[in-house]
Amino acid sequence: MTAHSGRHFLQVPGPTNVPDRVLRAIDNPPIDHRGPTFVALAKSVQAGLKRILRTTGPILIYPSSGTGAWEAAILNTLSPGDKVLAFETGQFSTLWNVMAKRHGLEVDFVAGDWRHGVDPAVVEAKLAADKGHAIKAVMVVHNETSTGVTSNVAGIRKAIDSARHPALYMVDAISSLCATDFRMDEWSVDVTVVGSQKGLMLPPGLAFNAVSQKALAAHKSAKLPRGYFEWQPMIDANDSGLYPFTPPISLFFGLEAAIEMLEEEGLENVFARHARFAEATRRAVRGWGLDILCVNPQEASNSLTAVMTPEGHNADAVRAAILERYDLSLGAGLGKVAGKLFRIGHLGWFNDLMLIGTLAGVEMGLSAAGVPHRNGGVGAAMDYLTGNVRTAAEPARAAAGAR
Amino acid sequence: MTAHSGRHFLQVPGPTNVPDRVLRAIDNPPIDHRGPTFVALAKSVQAGLKRILRTTGPILIYPSSGTGAWEAAILNTLSPGDKVLAFETGQFSTLWNVMAKRHGLEVDFVAGDWRHGVDPAVVEAKLAADKGHAIKAVMVVHNETSTGVTSNVAGIRKAIDSARHPALYMVDAISSLCATDFRMDEWSVDVTVVGSQKGLMLPPGLAFNAVSQKALAAHKSAKLPRGYFEWQPMIDANDSGLYPFTPPISLFFGLEAAIEMLEEEGLENVFARHARFAEATRRAVRGWGLDILCVNPQEASNSLTAVMTPEGHNADAVRAAILERYDLSLGAGLGKVAGKLFRIGHLGWFNDLMLIGTLAGVEMGLSAAGVPHRNGGVGAAMDYLTGNVRTAAEPARAAAGAR
Amino acid sequence: MTAHSGRHFLQVPGPTNVPDRVLRAIDNPPIDHRGPTFVALAKSVQAGLKRILRTTGPILIYPSSGTGAWEAAILNTLSPGDKVLAFETGQFSTLWNVMAKRHGLEVDFVAGDWRHGVDPAVVEAKLAADKGHAIKAVMVVHNETSTGVTSNVAGIRKAIDSARHPALYMVDAISSLCATDFRMDEWSVDVTVVGSQKGLMLPPGLAFNAVSQKALAAHKSAKLPRGYFEWQPMIDANDSGLYPFTPPISLFFGLEAAIEMLEEEGLENVFARHARFAEATRRAVRGWGLDILCVNPQEASNSLTAVMTPEGHNADAVRAAILERYDLSLGAGLGKVAGKLFRIGHLGWFNDLMLIGTLAGVEMGLSAAGVPHRNGGVGAAMDYLTGNVRTAAEPARAAAGAR
Amino acid sequence: MTAHSGRHFLQVPGPTNVPDRVLRAIDNPPIDHRGPTFVALAKSVQAGLKRILRTTGPILIYPSSGTGAWEAAILNTLSPGDKVLAFETGQFSTLWNVMAKRHGLEVDFVAGDWRHGVDPAVVEAKLAADKGHAIKAVMVVHNETSTGVTSNVAGIRKAIDSARHPALYMVDAISSLCATDFRMDEWSVDVTVVGSQKGLMLPPGLAFNAVSQKALAAHKSAKLPRGYFEWQPMIDANDSGLYPFTPPISLFFGLEAAIEMLEEEGLENVFARHARFAEATRRAVRGWGLDILCVNPQEASNSLTAVMTPEGHNADAVRAAILERYDLSLGAGLGKVAGKLFRIGHLGWFNDLMLIGTLAGVEMGLSAAGVPHRNGGVGAAMDYLTGNVRTAAEPARAAAGAR
Repeated sequence: MTAHSGRHFLQVPGPTNVPDRVLRAIDNPPIDHRGPTFVALAKSVQAGLKRILRTTGPILIYPSSGTGAWEAAILNTLSPGDKVLAFETGQFSTLWNVMAKRHGLEVDFVAGDWRHGVDPAVVEAKLAADKGHAIKAVMVVHNETSTGVTSNVAGIRKAIDSARHPALYMVDAISSLCATDFRMDEWSVDVTVVGSQKGLMLPPGLAFNAVSQKALAAHKSAKLPRGYFEWQPMIDANDSGLYPFTPPISLFFGLEAAIEMLEEEGLENVFARHARFAEATRRAVRGWGLDILCVNPQEASNSLTAVMTPEGHNADAVRAAILERYDLSLGAGLGKVAGKLFRIGHLGWFNDLMLIGTLAGVEMGLSAAGVPHRNGGVGAAMDYLTGNVRTAAEPARAAAGAR
Repeated sequence: MTAHSGRHFLQVPGPTNVPDRVLRAIDNPPIDHRGPTFVALAKSVQAGLKRILRTTGPILIYPSSGTGAWEAAILNTLSPGDKVLAFETGQFSTLWNVMAKRHGLEVDFVAGDWRHGVDPAVVEAKLAADKGHAIKAVMVVHNETSTGVTSNVAGIRKAIDSARHPALYMVDAISSLCATDFRMDEWSVDVTVVGSQKGLMLPPGLAFNAVSQKALAAHKSAKLPRGYFEWQPMIDANDSGLYPFTPPISLFFGLEAAIEMLEEEGLENVFARHARFAEATRRAVRGWGLDILCVNPQEASNSLTAVMTPEGHNADAVRAAILERYDLSLGAGLGKVAGKLFRIGHLGWFNDLMLIGTLAGVEMGLSAAGVPHRNGGVGAAMDYLTGNVRTAAEPARAAAGAR
Repeated sequence: MTAHSGRHFLQVPGPTNVPDRVLRAIDNPPIDHRGPTFVALAKSVQAGLKRILRTTGPILIYPSSGTGAWEAAILNTLSPGDKVLAFETGQFSTLWNVMAKRHGLEVDFVAGDWRHGVDPAVVEAKLAADKGHAIKAVMVVHNETSTGVTSNVAGIRKAIDSARHPALYMVDAISSLCATDFRMDEWSVDVTVVGSQKGLMLPPGLAFNAVSQKALAAHKSAKLPRGYFEWQPMIDANDSGLYPFTPPISLFFGLEAAIEMLEEEGLENVFARHARFAEATRRAVRGWGLDILCVNPQEASNSLTAVMTPEGHNADAVRAAILERYDLSLGAGLGKVAGKLFRIGHLGWFNDLMLIGTLAGVEMGLSAAGVPHRNGGVGAAMDYLTGNVRTAAEPARAAAGAR
Repeated sequence: MTAHSGRHFLQVPGPTNVPDRVLRAIDNPPIDHRGPTFVALAKSVQAGLKRILRTTGPILIYPSSGTGAWEAAILNTLSPGDKVLAFETGQFSTLWNVMAKRHGLEVDFVAGDWRHGVDPAVVEAKLAADKGHAIKAVMVVHNETSTGVTSNVAGIRKAIDSARHPALYMVDAISSLCATDFRMDEWSVDVTVVGSQKGLMLPPGLAFNAVSQKALAAHKSAKLPRGYFEWQPMIDANDSGLYPFTPPISLFFGLEAAIEMLEEEGLENVFARHARFAEATRRAVRGWGLDILCVNPQEASNSLTAVMTPEGHNADAVRAAILERYDLSLGAGLGKVAGKLFRIGHLGWFNDLMLIGTLAGVEMGLSAAGVPHRNGGVGAAMDYLTGNVRTAAEPARAAAGAR
């Protein structure tokens, strides 16, 4: 492989680009996890996460991946044989389904085509039909990292309420948090599952459960066996800024810095910035003449865009060519869409020029990989970013790979 | 609190001091966890850990604390109702006992006074008596971080063999690895549980299971439900340098650097260095006229020394005074020895002068806290380190706090 | 000012982007500048710089800016009243003229329009006319950082030789080194002046003199008074890897890393990469319909491109708009071209996607600043980079600000 | 050489230990030195340095060593043939004498034995005798880094005033600043020369001139030729936060962090801390039975202590043994005391336990090198630090190397 010069473009939809300020914070020497400096740090990050999740309940921080945090949510609230309602929106919801079954839950897993979010009407119908309230939890992935499709978390809440159903509402906000508006308390989410390596702009290694009072009540009678992920000792210890095991201190340093940066920018600005990148990206994709996996524009993700390659053009070969030539990492198609699409991550610590560099890498890479397309993608994104939308009559830049 | 100048002395028995070289490696920007650079990194650290653990079997790396890795060891090898043999050697073995019971195991938990290691003769007797081979696993903590007492892992292996018992042999090497000789394959350990923040000189955040062929065979029929900690998908993915979830890339960078440093020094030299620090520390404690928790010298830990404060002198008050005045963090007494002792960590990235600084902080702190003692501790340690042991006839430096 | 997200684009023509690997090296704790570790480091960087400059003579490393290194070159080789031949190629050659006069030299400063390099024919004529060899040195700036115009260092050497003139040949390679081929010994350059913050990919703070045997001979009789910059004690100390004053150790750490990176990439590849960025940039400028300061294509710089703004459009206002909106820093017009142009740096640790991001920031910024232009610049650069040059017949993307 | 574990002890009297916080600041990517962020940074560090030097005049910051800053002081205030009064207090004052002569100054260099500071009475007598005011400047080194002897800067000021002499007063505060009280304006110092790598806790690479109004007036008529070090363009540019050349941005980041840390601790506390370390060190040296170079206790340095080795014991061999065995760097004897002493630096980012570690390295190293001594040094220092001074009657710990 050739030695690359310049900065690698890490545009998988997580891990995302980590700000230098966060990396430098992580670079600090670890401290005693039972001493006063750590206690202050722990209280600071717990308070900050509550502000970001817009919740007042406890936040449990695990050294773990998001997968572990999903398991924690399940183990702490449910009992063997419990029934849950879940939705096939993509690879990650599919994995949660498998996880739930591993623990003996009965999952009503509503099939999907990976191109749509959860339909609130289906939620309402399912719950309304469940007269006996056998369904103990509704499990939803807010933003499917594998597809770039979001589900309407607020709308699903309304559906649950309309059905007057007492099920817990558990939401995977792993790749939506800090990219899309999320209001845990307002939307009465009972357990939110979060990871560090997406909108929080940290390296992977931390995962979170944010927990409502209703979830805490459920926890008291939840019978699934658990050890490491058991909430109670952590909640107890957290009151004093402590943890029941050695917490990953370095990532806590980084988390404090990341929260500071997000709040300096302002969460509303952060969301608006992500929406802008996402729209620019979609215009680029349409400029190339390629298809976006997400069908409904109102479900299109702020965090990433999944781009389908034309029949006969393996998306992984495209990604490999782009990595080799332009030192740009894109996300692969996962599970049943493997090889059929690539995912452009546009979340986290990111800006207009990084986005254009990214889109340019895709556009030039499509040529390099011989994928038929038009070359107008970057131009379309720039037009949007400058507030100057091209009219349909204007010719796009001529296609490179096409013909 | 006063602003401290100079370097904090982090002498809890984990997290330990992290080398600048490791911190700088961790400070590198995350990369795509499915790209070729990460694959090479993952293979490198897996191979390195095998050399350090002296094993040829798989190494499973979790973003987790050591607690999680203990749970992983249990979940992947045992079934509900299985009987295991364990030993109360301190706080951590006690926690593992609780963990095992949480998962429905029947634990024969041999009581102990926290001042001795596991007696191989007891192991042999217990197993010999178990004619029906109901005991499925023997669980031992190599070095009890809470007490500074080690158990004879090789000797226990012999005891198991003498009893011709097929139980799995599971060892917590969390605070022994890279401080004390450990030979997984030679000693036929079936699952070794390790954490990153001790002798491996990393921040907390990673934990490991090293696994024998016998453990892999047991895994096939183990029925405890598991998700995040399930071995199989990780073993499968690891073959290609991948992980079934987003691995904590930054800590992998650091792990590679730490393994390089350990191998540059040479493991034998690393062990000898730790033994030397431990002996110097014990001489310092005897120089102060204080008691060491560990009763048998041959069980004294290379990693830490637990020092008992005299009746009426709360060890936590001593630690607080030392932290305030000398910016030195020591380990607290945990569980049933809380307030009765403090723990001096002398493992990891450490040298003679850091040790003397540490012991001086303790010695001066004992005076500051009004604990009766003689002042000869630092001198005794220096005498030992220079190879010049003082004879009993020579007077020690006069006591400060003592009367 | 709004909080910016994502990475700042630092595209002034120095300081350039510093690789993370170099920054991490600089982040190491300083060491004893008279100890064996530093001695090895000093010898390593001196040897490395010789390879990069393609010279076998001594390299003097000063904590200084390039300005100081120019002064060092003058002070160590010349005497009060000496005559030198120099050329007004831009702001920096003008500053060196002022510097030479401050020290009592008589400068034959050949006037220029800042849009052309040094004409070798003029050099030859001037020297041929100097029958008495009153001219002691010819002073040339290889790449004028203020204009983006290079001079033909090899050609000027031939001119000097043709005139059979014994003058020293002193070259400022501050912004050419590691961007453009430079062969000190082959071209018989007598003193090369270099700075750290350009192609060497370091922060500012170091500057260098590379010195020929002929320059060393001249040094013996050079009478200009000097202290800090005196060569002899440094040459003497350097033999043992030492310095006559405390050297900037941290930057030495970084320099060693930078040299490693440049040699891993290969100098020929480094030059080719820079030539490619420069050509892509010029195509972008032409795509915008703007003028490049450099008149002769063969003199166009590999390191930077100076872009003239149309009459009535202050270039500093354009730069300010681009900085505010796109977090992109561009170089200002200096001296007599202040306000008339901006400079795009494309040297150092840089790649295709960073370049496109940079050019996109300019293109979108021209719109933001209301500068009349066409929008085809980014597209033209991408076409060139993909090896797919648009034909003249194809319409460019429609102009934004243009009328 | 053996691979060392643990932190190197860098106890030369500069470069000193750099705080992690400062290193991390330096690790930030460089920024445009003409952009608004740098302007704010430059203004911040200039203001901070004024507070630390207790002056209201301009501070000129050069990428340079202290040597360069001395030259700058001379070049900017004096003219060829000017007479100056200077004092041989050690190696650095000797070097400044050489520097002054290089520039054609006539130096009245009062001989000294390197064991005493400047005698204010001699200053007064010399100046009183200079009826014609031929002496243009009095040049004093506040703390001689080569000897550990300080001169009475305030007392010399009084001597100048008593003699009613108009000479400029130029002080090298390179290794005194931030270790010893220094009041530029109150003491009417005209030029203060400072370096970054001592009490300012930065790596080497920056040096400073702080300048009084009287020095600025002298500058107007000073005729020594100068280029890089010329004050005027920097003073002019500094008003807008700019520099006439590319400033070493990374070290500016570090300087801002260092000033913050010093002010958080409080300058008075910083001085008291240094005085305490110095006294503890001297007690250790007396405990070893070795001689301190500095004769008068009131002239003993807060920054370092020069320890003389007994006749027949080369101090460099002792230092080499200590470096090899204990990874501790000490300062060498320089110039005419080479081989006769070693210097223990105790300035900068430093605390009690680092000091004890350092002194233990010396004490154990004296044994390793076979230098006759008593072993009571570390104990004496600890007694002092705990506020518990041993009485003369109590026996010291028995000598190791002594016979």
